[in-house]
Amino acid sequence: MELMIINGPNLDLLGKRDPETYGTATLEDILRTLRTEYVGHTIDHFQSNIEGELIDELHRADGVYAGVIFNAAGYTHTSVALTDAVAAISVPVIEVHISNIYAREDFRHKSLLSPNCVGSISGLGVDVYRLAVEHFVAQ
Amino acid sequence: MELMIINGPNLDLLGKRDPETYGTATLEDILRTLRTEYVGHTIDHFQSNIEGELIDELHRADGVYAGVIFNAAGYTHTSVALTDAVAAISVPVIEVHISNIYAREDFRHKSLLSPNCVGSISGLGVDVYRLAVEHFVAQ
Amino acid sequence: MELMIINGPNLDLLGKRDPETYGTATLEDILRTLRTEYVGHTIDHFQSNIEGELIDELHRADGVYAGVIFNAAGYTHTSVALTDAVAAISVPVIEVHISNIYAREDFRHKSLLSPNCVGSISGLGVDVYRLAVEHFVAQ
Amino acid sequence: MELMIINGPNLDLLGKRDPETYGTATLEDILRTLRTEYVGHTIDHFQSNIEGELIDELHRADGVYAGVIFNAAGYTHTSVALTDAVAAISVPVIEVHISNIYAREDFRHKSLLSPNCVGSISGLGVDVYRLAVEHFVAQ
Amino acid sequence: MELMIINGPNLDLLGKRDPETYGTATLEDILRTLRTEYVGHTIDHFQSNIEGELIDELHRADGVYAGVIFNAAGYTHTSVALTDAVAAISVPVIEVHISNIYAREDFRHKSLLSPNCVGSISGLGVDVYRLAVEHFVAQ
Amino acid sequence: MELMIINGPNLDLLGKRDPETYGTATLEDILRTLRTEYVGHTIDHFQSNIEGELIDELHRADGVYAGVIFNAAGYTHTSVALTDAVAAISVPVIEVHISNIYAREDFRHKSLLSPNCVGSISGLGVDVYRLAVEHFVAQ
Amino acid sequence: MELMIINGPNLDLLGKRDPETYGTATLEDILRTLRTEYVGHTIDHFQSNIEGELIDELHRADGVYAGVIFNAAGYTHTSVALTDAVAAISVPVIEVHISNIYAREDFRHKSLLSPNCVGSISGLGVDVYRLAVEHFVAQ
Amino acid sequence: MELMIINGPNLDLLGKRDPETYGTATLEDILRTLRTEYVGHTIDHFQSNIEGELIDELHRADGVYAGVIFNAAGYTHTSVALTDAVAAISVPVIEVHISNIYAREDFRHKSLLSPNCVGSISGLGVDVYRLAVEHFVAQ
Amino acid sequence: MELMIINGPNLDLLGKRDPETYGTATLEDILRTLRTEYVGHTIDHFQSNIEGELIDELHRADGVYAGVIFNAAGYTHTSVALTDAVAAISVPVIEVHISNIYAREDFRHKSLLSPNCVGSISGLGVDVYRLAVEHFVAQ
Amino acid sequence: MELMIINGPNLDLLGKRDPETYGTATLEDILRTLRTEYVGHTIDHFQSNIEGELIDELHRADGVYAGVIFNAAGYTHTSVALTDAVAAISVPVIEVHISNIYAREDFRHKSLLSPNCVGSISGLGVDVYRLAVEHFVAQ
Amino acid sequence: MELMIINGPNLDLLGKRDPETYGTATLEDILRTLRTEYVGHTIDHFQSNIEGELIDELHRADGVYAGVIFNAAGYTHTSVALTDAVAAISVPVIEVHISNIYAREDFRHKSLLSPNCVGSISGLGVDVYRLAVEHFVAQ
Amino acid sequence: MELMIINGPNLDLLGKRDPETYGTATLEDILRTLRTEYVGHTIDHFQSNIEGELIDELHRADGVYAGVIFNAAGYTHTSVALTDAVAAISVPVIEVHISNIYAREDFRHKSLLSPNCVGSISGLGVDVYRLAVEHFVAQ
Repeated sequence: MELMIINGPNLDLLGKRDPETYGTATLEDILRTLRTEYVGHTIDHFQSNIEGELIDELHRADGVYAGVIFNAAGYTHTSVALTDAVAAISVPVIEVHISNIYAREDFRHKSLLSPNCVGSISGLGVDVYRLAVEHFVAQ
Repeated sequence: MELMIINGPNLDLLGKRDPETYGTATLEDILRTLRTEYVGHTIDHFQSNIEGELIDELHRADGVYAGVIFNAAGYTHTSVALTDAVAAISVPVIEVHISNIYAREDFRHKSLLSPNCVGSISGLGVDVYRLAVEHFVAQ
Repeated sequence: MELMIINGPNLDLLGKRDPETYGTATLEDILRTLRTEYVGHTIDHFQSNIEGELIDELHRADGVYAGVIFNAAGYTHTSVALTDAVAAISVPVIEVHISNIYAREDFRHKSLLSPNCVGSISGLGVDVYRLAVEHFVAQ
Repeated sequence: MELMIINGPNLDLLGKRDPETYGTATLEDILRTLRTEYVGHTIDHFQSNIEGELIDELHRADGVYAGVIFNAAGYTHTSVALTDAVAAISVPVIEVHISNIYAREDFRHKSLLSPNCVGSISGLGVDVYRLAVEHFVAQ
Repeated sequence: MELMIINGPNLDLLGKRDPETYGTATLEDILRTLRTEYVGHTIDHFQSNIEGELIDELHRADGVYAGVIFNAAGYTHTSVALTDAVAAISVPVIEVHISNIYAREDFRHKSLLSPNCVGSISGLGVDVYRLAVEHFVAQ
Repeated sequence: MELMIINGPNLDLLGKRDPETYGTATLEDILRTLRTEYVGHTIDHFQSNIEGELIDELHRADGVYAGVIFNAAGYTHTSVALTDAVAAISVPVIEVHISNIYAREDFRHKSLLSPNCVGSISGLGVDVYRLAVEHFVAQ
Repeated sequence: MELMIINGPNLDLLGKRDPETYGTATLEDILRTLRTEYVGHTIDHFQSNIEGELIDELHRADGVYAGVIFNAAGYTHTSVALTDAVAAISVPVIEVHISNIYAREDFRHKSLLSPNCVGSISGLGVDVYRLAVEHFVAQ
Repeated sequence: MELMIINGPNLDLLGKRDPETYGTATLEDILRTLRTEYVGHTIDHFQSNIEGELIDELHRADGVYAGVIFNAAGYTHTSVALTDAVAAISVPVIEVHISNIYAREDFRHKSLLSPNCVGSISGLGVDVYRLAVEHFVAQ
Repeated sequence: MELMIINGPNLDLLGKRDPETYGTATLEDILRTLRTEYVGHTIDHFQSNIEGELIDELHRADGVYAGVIFNAAGYTHTSVALTDAVAAISVPVIEVHISNIYAREDFRHKSLLSPNCVGSISGLGVDVYRLAVEHFVAQ
Repeated sequence: MELMIINGPNLDLLGKRDPETYGTATLEDILRTLRTEYVGHTIDHFQSNIEGELIDELHRADGVYAGVIFNAAGYTHTSVALTDAVAAISVPVIEVHISNIYAREDFRHKSLLSPNCVGSISGLGVDVYRLAVEHFVAQ
Repeated sequence: MELMIINGPNLDLLGKRDPETYGTATLEDILRTLRTEYVGHTIDHFQSNIEGELIDELHRADGVYAGVIFNAAGYTHTSVALTDAVAAISVPVIEVHISNIYAREDFRHKSLLSPNCVGSISGLGVDVYRLAVEHFVAQ
Repeated sequence: MELMIINGPNLDLLGKRDPETYGTATLEDILRTLRTEYVGHTIDHFQSNIEGELIDELHRADGVYAGVIFNAAGYTHTSVALTDAVAAISVPVIEVHISNIYAREDFRHKSLLSPNCVGSISGLGVDVYRLAVEHFVAQ
């Protein structure tokens, strides 16, 4: 099964800053672990801080992957354009968040993405990426 | 590892009504499958339509289980008493929802439980129970 | 025709307190009068102050009765779980209120039940029970 | 007993359009049936699309009829002037709605009329007119 | 000086109903008294329950009168069309209300008319008409 | 093609007042120009300041015209009854506004009509009428 | 008749600044004119920028004057303490505002004072003081 | 004097968890201390996590006790049914809260109970029970 | 123990007006009774209608008294400056209200003071002062 | 006349996905048709999914084109930066939307762009581009 | 250049309490430092906890100083009267706040003063006073 | 000291358009002046209209500069991603705005950036850049 993980703004800093909150695993570490655990599956990755590049990547993913795992970070709460992109493509998208967004500031409680995703997983640390992969490969 | 699954109001009807939405699996089916897949772990279960009995069960779970998987259904959005119960106990609780609550009515978008849970998984059908178990046993 | 009347919290006090507002008829009086007027029909009754027991009773009513007449009283305005129960069953439910809830406090103006009921009758005193029965038997 | 039924905007189209929603009964059919069922009572009728003519008619009804059955349709949610008219007269007014206004758009959930009516009946199809008549004649 | 008094919905009932609140003076009484007190001035009058007829009258008043005294009653709080009419004409309009609208229901606290009127006088009983006339003739 | 232009409150003043904002073209001028440019098509017209007469005209237009061009002016933002009328008829309606309602007061930003119209054109001066005609005749 | 005019914050600047908006009449000018026009009546005056001194003055006015004319200026919209003071005394208070507060910023549209005053007069320039006096002396 | 203390959800955990916040006194400790200090008075107690059982107990208390001291905990902010129960009985009820609910989350700032209680005492630790008893016995 | 009671706006009228609501006890009566009941303790008192003088007094109380009992009356709901003063000092402050502020107008339901006080007592008449003293001296 | 059409996020998918909603015409088809119909005029085009590139393009268009036709898609409702760009340039901009944004989700009802555009056209399918061109060339 | 620094409620405590937050510099220290650094300029100072005295001081400053530096503290968020005072005078006023008011409670995020000041500086500690002086003297 | 100035969308137009509002100084002019005045310090600069490039630049600035001066322009009010970037880096950031954003449209009153910046300076024209530099170099 071919899966795509897309990470949004500031996630390039993962594992490099604020390690007591987010752990010391970088995006590269997470990918390496996933590819080891789910050998036989393709797990691609894209990260950008630019909203429009994330839209472009969602467009490209359509028809190519069996599933998209999307951590839109700060754009989760503000981007109509991104949720339109998720709605426009037919590949199923799972929304993930490393921290529990519902235990943080009010403006993080509302996700514009959620209504167009098949599901969402949040607050379980970087394990959210693995659980989303687990869900796709188990189908 | 000993885990407790707690299900709230109307979930006793699971698999018996509206099967095109929720599937045909009953709570018993879900438990049987989980216990088969996670043999060697204890997976207990409690369901009630009564808010206070769910609180009682959360109290009882504290100190007994390594994790609680909680689908509070309709009480998710209205019960301060339940979120107080989750906050009062030290066992980690994962909130699960079978359907994507964020794609439904507005009053389902706000979960009072989320801030006191370690994480939440929603919208992936009855697989949400398995993913929550998967997260606990992988730690 | 078999009908079920379900009454929610504090309605056990009907006719016993505040008679200048609610009249002196108790639930028993109302039922006796209805059974006399609609002889040949079965009119069952259930009252509880416990939200979850009302949910249980709605579940039990499904497939048994031709119609449910439901006065959820204070739970009308706060219970997502009860409206989920009404939505989950296929027996038609009519919402009734003895007093005009729209002429009272703001928090009584919003009924969570209404969207899942076939209709609602409010503000005409205990006659609301009779009008609901009248509607069911006339169909 | 002399009763007046007042119908507001667009109800002149009843039975002529959207019959799968509102049925095929016209206002004339409804009146004919009511006058047959409640022979011995006078049931008058007025319909207008003009808010001020409905106010005029409410003024005229005062002191003439034992009860008014009022379907204000779209003016229900916006007209302070109509609810003032209902408040200004001493004949009791029952508010009726053919469809379940609480299961429709948000702006239909608030009735300005309700606080000044003796009660309201909604969502039971054209039977709402009969139930209102039934309530008046039973007193 | 030629002045026009325009009265909106339900004010035709003035003095005829609820006399302990509004007094026993009818519109005719008020006009007779004003014409006596302000002899030498023309004080015309128009009343309608129909919003559009009030708009028509405001249009007609423009260029004819030195001032308009307008009690829009229930339309005060809901009519964009009426405030547009006041804005479109160049004759100065004073808004009057017999009762203190700010001591009544919330929906009466907001006047759409006020921003386009030169001033407003409320809550001093039928004397509000006289004070408005007094203001115009004193200029 | 037979088209109907319906104009709401205060639009009878068009071209007569506030010419620096709305221009000097009257409704008659606009119609004359349109009939010249779209010779071979019928372009009828109705204007009223009375909400209910606009409803009546919409009812009459149904089945008669291929399209309705509707400037509801101040009623745009407040009339549930008018949007119900648009919804009840099957002729397509285009909503037009001469000024940019979104650059004016907050209460003009919300149109109750829009959801039931096929489209809306605003802010381009009296050319909005021509563009709506252009759209209908080009189909 | 003995009347008291109380003026709140910044009104000591009246006539001294922004004369194109507020005119050139100072508080002293206004009082002199009123005392001339209503000779035979006592018209006292108090001005302070300090909220609590206005409360003190309202207390002192009780039982001494037949009426109070109160321009609370900026405290109108924020002071629960002042409206409590008005409610606590039995002398009737008329609220006045020189400018049309409803045509200004949103935070000036809500008066906390209004519900406890017998009426309010606004937007007619300094003539509001005279109209309030006129109302009292005419009773 | 016979008094009843009713405690709501999660208060069975008092003194057993989070002692640095709530102290180490259990409900039993609190009752023992009160009965010692107020010897000669009867101080009964009821605790339940079930909303409807609290309603039942309030009903039973009516006519039996001279006062009820009620800590509704999480139900304080959500239960219309409980405030209806307090309103339906004639025994005076004092609302108490151990912690300062106004210094906690927003959803704890609003008490539905307060309007129907004779008073409320919050934020002074378990001394709130004693102060409420003190108030009753001092009358 | 040395305690300070601070009373805010309009409380100088206590016992002198509206005795059926607030009783006939003046501030002097209340103080005399307290000093008699709590002989051996110092109970000082300050009252002002001026917000800033209340701030000054809170500053002066710091380091002098063991506790402050503060009835801020109308300033309770509007004064950020007063709650800042309470926060800035280290003496514990108990907020008291004679009437049940939660059963009155909406704008009285929110206290800006509460989050910075150790607790609040409201609605039990002038006994709230005694209960606050009782709490302090019992520590 | 030289015109610029600027299309925002996801519009590169036009005609390629969801054809029953948006039709089968691609942006290229639309441009080809427009250039044929409006031969003699220059119609340039720019599309990007990146908000900042749309801002850049608006800057470049200033002083070059006689008009801009702008479909900002999802950025319409969220981008203060884009509406600032429209405000900063002097070329007139018409806002267009293919679907009726007012008949869709609530968050699509508010356009931040509208106040700075000369007008807007929505809901008439891809004909909105032609009507905007028609408006510019007819001036 | 002559400048006036006006400080509002609780700022008399600066440097005396909560030094880890606000530092140990008192108002006197700040002034001494400023007068040393900006020798040749006059820097006057006024502090009061009384809202009306701050208004009085703003009035006095007009025409006397080249600029006012105003820290209104808690009155910033609640005082219409103070912002009216700032608007009424012609001397430019810079609003300053020692702490970052936007990182504190919600009710501190809204400044009523800001719209009438020439600018605002916040969150940089007591250096905000110096930066405001710096801005004035550099002009 | 090495400082970085980052400017967001539309600020590339500074000095080129709307000079009566923003002055005629371009970004280049501002930088040249600053570098002259603060010779001996490094003042770097970055401008982009693309949100994600601003995030990239903030990441790059971390660990390199002693301070960042950030004018996020239109993104100030909408970008969770940018405020996350500011929070993720350890270099202190001062928010600046050339115009007084609090005197403009409502949607400009809320800054998402402010809570994560050390302070903010707004409304003093291009001098805000200098004051921010002044603050950094003075530390």
